Amino acid sequence: MPKQVDHRERREAIARALWRVVEQRGMAHASVREVAEEAGISHGAVQHYFATRAEMLVFAMDFASEQTSQRVAASVGKLGDPPHPRDMLRAMLVEMLPLHDDARATSRMSAAYVLEALHDANIHTRARDGLKHGRDLVKRIVRQAIKEGHVSADRDPVTETTLLLALTGLTPLLELTVISPREALAAIDQHLDRLFSRSVSAPTPAAPPARGR
Amino acid sequence: MPKQVDHRERREAIARALWRVVEQRGMAHASVREVAEEAGISHGAVQHYFATRAEMLVFAMDFASEQTSQRVAASVGKLGDPPHPRDMLRAMLVEMLPLHDDARATSRMSAAYVLEALHDANIHTRARDGLKHGRDLVKRIVRQAIKEGHVSADRDPVTETTLLLALTGLTPLLELTVISPREALAAIDQHLDRLFSRSVSAPTPAAPPARGR
Repeated sequence: MPKQVDHRERREAIARALWRVVEQRGMAHASVREVAEEAGISHGAVQHYFATRAEMLVFAMDFASEQTSQRVAASVGKLGDPPHPRDMLRAMLVEMLPLHDDARATSRMSAAYVLEALHDANIHTRARDGLKHGRDLVKRIVRQAIKEGHVSADRDPVTETTLLLALTGLTPLLELTVISPREALAAIDQHLDRLFSRSVSAPTPAAPPARGR
Repeated sequence: MPKQVDHRERREAIARALWRVVEQRGMAHASVREVAEEAGISHGAVQHYFATRAEMLVFAMDFASEQTSQRVAASVGKLGDPPHPRDMLRAMLVEMLPLHDDARATSRMSAAYVLEALHDANIHTRARDGLKHGRDLVKRIVRQAIKEGHVSADRDPVTETTLLLALTGLTPLLELTVISPREALAAIDQHLDRLFSRSVSAPTPAAPPARGR
């Protein structure tokens, strides 16, 4: 079906143009007009592929998520078979952070999309579903790692998943060069080392052993 | 000096109007015109207080940081004397996350400001300085906690500071209701419990004890 392939290719080219606009100028510039200019096609051609700006944004974000997943899959493919859950989680985190050009483009798209979602009900639903999907994926890996004994059974998979996702909070620190990529990776490794260390005796809420007051 | 007080008050009122615009409509709407409308004053009056949109944004962000610091100081003031470093860090994290109305306004302002900083050299410098200031503050608390024996001496204060700041990555999860405020607080408490637990034997890079391969 060459026509459908072409349709998909054109939509992806427009999505990439939108990423570049968002990365280089910011989401406020991601209008049909500026994206068409960046893609080197007419305003009408963009409208042929996307009825509205919101539709264009949603596709561009879905495509960014797909590309991130593909980069993760490529990294995981280079790991052992089966891949160690620690390495899988590390590959996911690394590709979600702006540590190289491709990841920077999708990371900026993602950050801008979350803010856009706060003021657009449709985008809100889509962005929420996207984050929930990512969360479910991480939770499955954590549960499996506990089941296989890589992670201590006294760890709560829900809380551990939340803490892993929170590491995307390194993004503004990296973007504004407050921390170096090396420092970001050291923090990720430290967090993963602790998660996958079974020698930890977690303090109980009733009697935290080390508050020392 | 009543005139200076009035000047400051007017600038703060404009800054709060800008926060409301950013919170309710997004940074793309934070023009001098829309902020003037939201503040209920004339376009010219805003320009009397701020020569440019960028100047208005910078002031609004500085004011947001000040207000966040004041909320943290108020929380810390209710703690023991001297306050425990764990509780100080918790108070800081809680006020940086969108867990109540005031914090939501300053958190959205902050997220939008980071994205704005990527395309404006002056805002970039200011935003970077702001994040570095916050980082230095957290690092000082962590170093002091290690010195006083609340945190194990084998913890690296730089990495621990990075991991604490990364917890602001809970923001998109909270904003899009992927996690509840209760889950966010459980994650923060879990992280702080581990940081302040001296019973942890951190795995060494040379021989991670629990990778189990």
